[in-house]
Amino acid sequence: MSRKARIYVTLKPTLLDAQGRVVQQALTNIGFEGVENVRMGKYIEIDLADEAASESNVADMCARLLANPVTEDFRLDLEDA
Amino acid sequence: MSRKARIYVTLKPTLLDAQGRVVQQALTNIGFEGVENVRMGKYIEIDLADEAASESNVADMCARLLANPVTEDFRLDLEDA
Repeated sequence: MSRKARIYVTLKPTLLDAQGRVVQQALTNIGFEGVENVRMGKYIEIDLADEAASESNVADMCARLLANPVTEDFRLDLEDA
Repeated sequence: MSRKARIYVTLKPTLLDAQGRVVQQALTNIGFEGVENVRMGKYIEIDLADEAASESNVADMCARLLANPVTEDFRLDLEDA
């Protein structure tokens, strides 16, 4: 059996999200009204062997490779696959 | 008051996720064991005016701009911001 980690990486709230700004403008341009703000992030699913499936291990993966701790925040969920 | 839509865009399961494969190999290379599979996706947060905050409206945004319906699936949650 293995477990699935779901990781959400987001730009820190104080930073300008240029990609999100472009998407917001594009949504408005094609006719969607009421779009006040857009923030783009990454969503990562990792299947892990049982012995690797601890929150601290996955948080370590985020800190060392998956997220840039200078500019990004992350949160994670672990569940049975 | 506004509402927040959270959108998760993932590659269709039948497609090879080349970026995920690279990340899986990188995690293994820096010493993480038990990483069986990695899938990379997008995570998008949209703040919406109340009158725009319907599931059908956000699904329409996904189908028309945020996701590529040929290669990607999406799911969404709506909540009070």
